[in-house]
Amino acid sequence: MRETTQTVAEGLEGVVAARTRISDVDGEAGRLTIAGFALEEIAGRATAEEMIWLLWRDALPTAPERDAFARDLAERRALPSIALDLLRAAAARQSDPMDALRMAAATLSLDAPADDEDQARTVIARFPVIAAAYERLSQGHEPIAPRPDLGHAANYLYCLTGAPASPERVRALETYWNAVADHGLNASTFTARVIAATGSDLVSAVTGAVGALKGPLHGGAPGPALDMVFEIGSPERAEPILREKLERGERMMGFGHRIYKVRDPRADVLASAAERLFQSDGDRALYRIALEVEQTVLRLLEEYKPGRRLQTNVEFYTALLLHGLGMPTRLFTPTFAAGRAAGWLAHCFEQRRTGRIIRPQSEYVGERGRTYPSQE
Amino acid sequence: MRETTQTVAEGLEGVVAARTRISDVDGEAGRLTIAGFALEEIAGRATAEEMIWLLWRDALPTAPERDAFARDLAERRALPSIALDLLRAAAARQSDPMDALRMAAATLSLDAPADDEDQARTVIARFPVIAAAYERLSQGHEPIAPRPDLGHAANYLYCLTGAPASPERVRALETYWNAVADHGLNASTFTARVIAATGSDLVSAVTGAVGALKGPLHGGAPGPALDMVFEIGSPERAEPILREKLERGERMMGFGHRIYKVRDPRADVLASAAERLFQSDGDRALYRIALEVEQTVLRLLEEYKPGRRLQTNVEFYTALLLHGLGMPTRLFTPTFAAGRAAGWLAHCFEQRRTGRIIRPQSEYVGERGRTYPSQE
Repeated sequence: MRETTQTVAEGLEGVVAARTRISDVDGEAGRLTIAGFALEEIAGRATAEEMIWLLWRDALPTAPERDAFARDLAERRALPSIALDLLRAAAARQSDPMDALRMAAATLSLDAPADDEDQARTVIARFPVIAAAYERLSQGHEPIAPRPDLGHAANYLYCLTGAPASPERVRALETYWNAVADHGLNASTFTARVIAATGSDLVSAVTGAVGALKGPLHGGAPGPALDMVFEIGSPERAEPILREKLERGERMMGFGHRIYKVRDPRADVLASAAERLFQSDGDRALYRIALEVEQTVLRLLEEYKPGRRLQTNVEFYTALLLHGLGMPTRLFTPTFAAGRAAGWLAHCFEQRRTGRIIRPQSEYVGERGRTYPSQE
Repeated sequence: MRETTQTVAEGLEGVVAARTRISDVDGEAGRLTIAGFALEEIAGRATAEEMIWLLWRDALPTAPERDAFARDLAERRALPSIALDLLRAAAARQSDPMDALRMAAATLSLDAPADDEDQARTVIARFPVIAAAYERLSQGHEPIAPRPDLGHAANYLYCLTGAPASPERVRALETYWNAVADHGLNASTFTARVIAATGSDLVSAVTGAVGALKGPLHGGAPGPALDMVFEIGSPERAEPILREKLERGERMMGFGHRIYKVRDPRADVLASAAERLFQSDGDRALYRIALEVEQTVLRLLEEYKPGRRLQTNVEFYTALLLHGLGMPTRLFTPTFAAGRAAGWLAHCFEQRRTGRIIRPQSEYVGERGRTYPSQE
């Protein structure tokens, strides 16, 4: 019964499922192209709003377009009271922040008609507001109402603390969001496309994508990299502790990438952003330890695993940057989701244009000819 | 820029993405195998609870297993008050029933720990309760509390009306749910597998699947087939009205199937179930019209589209059967979802055993080398 007659593309590895103009991941060359721009060219310069527009329309907005788009997003931020009630119920049960985000995301059609552009804008406007509200509720604080006079990134930082964030902090968050806004057909983006391809609405598509991003195999869990830095705690402890870990065969969290063999271009961009952020404010001592940890890990990896060319990946600097922005590790994945949502929605728009349902085959390897037992 | 160097599997058509023991769709032979049983063997005999167990465990339950499973499902039915509040908010905004189901589905982790079996049972127990509660709320009635002394199908019919359903009606619903419980890697089932494959929880997976099922390209929208029967209204009007439609080039809703070329085995099973149901109670006049419409459509299709071999499909008899059970067309897709959820979850369990993330490739066809404009 288990004889195989067809080739099964396990995990769809190597199967090209879509043509896209949104991003190109070139792992061999260590290059990431976002809608025509090298990541290094765009990530540290565009505002969050400009990047979203670019991903959705394959062109940067004009100044009037950008300002109108930013104003429109700002007006969409307030959550309906039922969404806040739901987050309160989730906080009372200590739900995982990604469960809370999925629940609130699923409600976003309540006051966004089924029109794609309208739903997409509402999703973008509210994801950070949901993440911030849930963070506060889960810590026993009331949510902070969003401020329509702030930009997309500035408002998120404001909703977390109630204090306006410095331009340096806003820039750091925008660079982070821009750096992770899209990355090929990863599992959450593919989920969004499969759902959108049925003709379903975009709230359904991003709700599914949030569920996929929650999975531990998805990647984008930068917490452990930071835990290692905290554990080491001072520069001179880096080498002995890391040697011990490598001797025990432990993985170095934040190093190495399945696709990027030379370098992860996002790591470079976030390294510079982290450097600028920690120069302006933030825990400089921690930053120095992190750099020492990074240099030591790279040196020791070359010693213990020669030729593997394991490089610092996006998670290491994400952890450092988001920590520098005052975020606890439980906020890392929802914050990532708020950035990646721009890419999910761009892929939905692109998928709409093909109009084709995504429906692979399966191969049946089970029994046949079973009979239902006659009743006693 | 648009030159193609790779083969793109548009819609993943013909790509075998998984081996499965859950169902086998043989379109050429007109056969559907469900976990080792020909559909005709199992659909009209197994209870809903037995079918769910079979799909999840590749074997029918023993009598004690079946009874314990049924009791456990019955105890999980009550919705938390926040889920009812959410359905109320959705009803106040006249949300689409599938949007309401997605919202409520997303909350199911609130009191189901992340354990797969626990979440799966909660999903199965509550989907019909959610569908019934939303139907009542959207019509201005209060939801009816589920009854733990009733079986899975009987409780759904009870929650819709507050009156116990006859054994014939319960059997008709069970046959329907069994007939649509699984059907290969359709788009919603594939969505559930992609999400589960990241290691995410099953509530996330079925929430995504609900979103995919909502799409009009997914199939499973039996409303229009019934509308045609209503429009015709009496047997002697069948031929003139249908001829007129065919002359105008209209599609005959409820006839023809992308995969099944000879016959749709689900249509046969549901035709018998509908016959039994309408014999015991129900609108016999409507049933006679429907049969006349079916025979006339098949005769006229042979005349107008000779050789196309268009057969009555599952949607035609689904519409008739669910109408016979007293359901308005807006309940058809949520009722389908409550049956298909068993298959979604079976695929999640199966996907867990492979442990492999599902992540295809994309081909970049966009621009390169764009530069960010210098600021004025």
